[in-house]
Amino acid sequence: MKALVFDGELKLVTTHPDPERRPGEALIRMGVAGICNTDLEITRGYMDYTGVLGHEFVGTVEQSEDDTLVGKRVAGEINLPCGACETCRRGLGNHCPTREVLGMVGGRGAFAEFLTLPEANLHVVPDDVTDDEAVFTEPLAAACEILRQVDVELGAKVCVLGDGKLGLLVVQVLESFADEITLVGKSLDKIHRVGSSAVQRVLAEEFEISPRFDVVVDCTGSPSGFTTAMQLVRPRGTLVLKTTAVDAEPVNLAPIVVNEVTIVGSRCGPFDQALRILEEHQVDTTPLVSARFDIAQALDAFRTAAKPTTLKVLIDFAR
Amino acid sequence: MKALVFDGELKLVTTHPDPERRPGEALIRMGVAGICNTDLEITRGYMDYTGVLGHEFVGTVEQSEDDTLVGKRVAGEINLPCGACETCRRGLGNHCPTREVLGMVGGRGAFAEFLTLPEANLHVVPDDVTDDEAVFTEPLAAACEILRQVDVELGAKVCVLGDGKLGLLVVQVLESFADEITLVGKSLDKIHRVGSSAVQRVLAEEFEISPRFDVVVDCTGSPSGFTTAMQLVRPRGTLVLKTTAVDAEPVNLAPIVVNEVTIVGSRCGPFDQALRILEEHQVDTTPLVSARFDIAQALDAFRTAAKPTTLKVLIDFAR
Repeated sequence: MKALVFDGELKLVTTHPDPERRPGEALIRMGVAGICNTDLEITRGYMDYTGVLGHEFVGTVEQSEDDTLVGKRVAGEINLPCGACETCRRGLGNHCPTREVLGMVGGRGAFAEFLTLPEANLHVVPDDVTDDEAVFTEPLAAACEILRQVDVELGAKVCVLGDGKLGLLVVQVLESFADEITLVGKSLDKIHRVGSSAVQRVLAEEFEISPRFDVVVDCTGSPSGFTTAMQLVRPRGTLVLKTTAVDAEPVNLAPIVVNEVTIVGSRCGPFDQALRILEEHQVDTTPLVSARFDIAQALDAFRTAAKPTTLKVLIDFAR
Repeated sequence: MKALVFDGELKLVTTHPDPERRPGEALIRMGVAGICNTDLEITRGYMDYTGVLGHEFVGTVEQSEDDTLVGKRVAGEINLPCGACETCRRGLGNHCPTREVLGMVGGRGAFAEFLTLPEANLHVVPDDVTDDEAVFTEPLAAACEILRQVDVELGAKVCVLGDGKLGLLVVQVLESFADEITLVGKSLDKIHRVGSSAVQRVLAEEFEISPRFDVVVDCTGSPSGFTTAMQLVRPRGTLVLKTTAVDAEPVNLAPIVVNEVTIVGSRCGPFDQALRILEEHQVDTTPLVSARFDIAQALDAFRTAAKPTTLKVLIDFAR
């Protein structure tokens, strides 16, 4: 099968062996997959990963012991926990120390014509949700996770830093909970792409830096985002950190203590909630799609995804 | 009066002007003051402070419009908020952006024969609490603050990093709440000074580093403590950051996100709770006192406090 592989360099492999379905797993024919900033970071060395890339997808189950899944469109959770260790027994399977992570740890990934995943990882996509919407389930779940971790109180002033794909999902998810919400980005075009008229939209270069927000969400994807976020969060406020970048930057930790800030690392999230939000059209993903390629053009897709003006690049296996 | 002043260098001034009591303030004759690591950091440039040093003290009220205070021994909260700004009106006076901070912002400090402080900052010391105990009220309050910020759940495994003064208070405050508590330090002598037999005591060089603690409290006073703490906290666990050091260190923030760790900056705390704990002898401060000097020997006191083998150094104004 065709697959996009990273082994120190990015390669389109046309004769990659088809995955072998193990007990409890489903075989999925890929529909549409999305390129995430994490994929780009991996090609820069993040996670020390080699294997098939990709973890955002919607596909159709071709084989499964679970008849209710066969023929269904599915999105899939990306962590494959062992299920037996202490962490798993605590219900923290997403943090299992020996887990595989789709496109990040273990070798299998979504930028391939076929993928096997445990049936337990799969969520059936409602009929009203298109493939182009369903491919956002994973990043949208990550946006929803903020609401599970942070109590966005009535009257809260929220700032979302970053007008990339994740920032534009986060601002849509949080805007109905916040009293005031501000989206800060580098692109006049991007900061106006999504959200209601209640969202305040500011260019980073024109943004007043002062510690006035109850909750700041760093979706910049840049290590420097943390420092900016720290300058924006009020004393005893909360900074939600979404950025995973490969670089370490010098950080003065004293302001965390002096201002008694709480920092919440936030990653994966609830797929069921994300699919419900998509079904109810509470977020609009259409403005987030910048380009579409087939798998044979996957290297071009990556080059396009790396451009700062690009939002989501899709790899469409049905083309 | 005699006062220990930092103006780029540390000086004992014997003719420092007596403080002038303003409306709402009490004039306090210093009893015993304690040298904190923050005082040492300030002499290395932290806070850009110049003025009288010192913020841990117990003294006796000589003058006050509040008759119930006159003649009483008091400990004093160190933040002097404006009382009028938005932050103060939200009840976050300890974070008032224009606040004075005793011995850190504004010039007045406790290493002086006399000190004025707002009466609202003062807490009367119970008769059963000695001066040598009461001088620990401020750092003990900072230890108690952890319990207000973090839900130490039943069965929690807690690790306290650092066998300095603060670490030895924190371990005593937390040990009755934790199911398992481990104290990690560099000195075999210090890690055995306080706490019950239930406390596990380990030398840093022999300590197994793995992410197994629900709550890790960084009391190392060193920027590198954060990195170690991050390696000890379990996924979705909590890291309480107490260290305020002047240096910025390169920090890779990705593990905060990947492991969904919560970091809680923690600083001042409840004086009333600290005084109650002292009155009920729930913590033992005696083993924390390393040396005692009079104010005329304050420079020697600082040199002693800077030695790694030293714990609390007291400046005793009654000598």
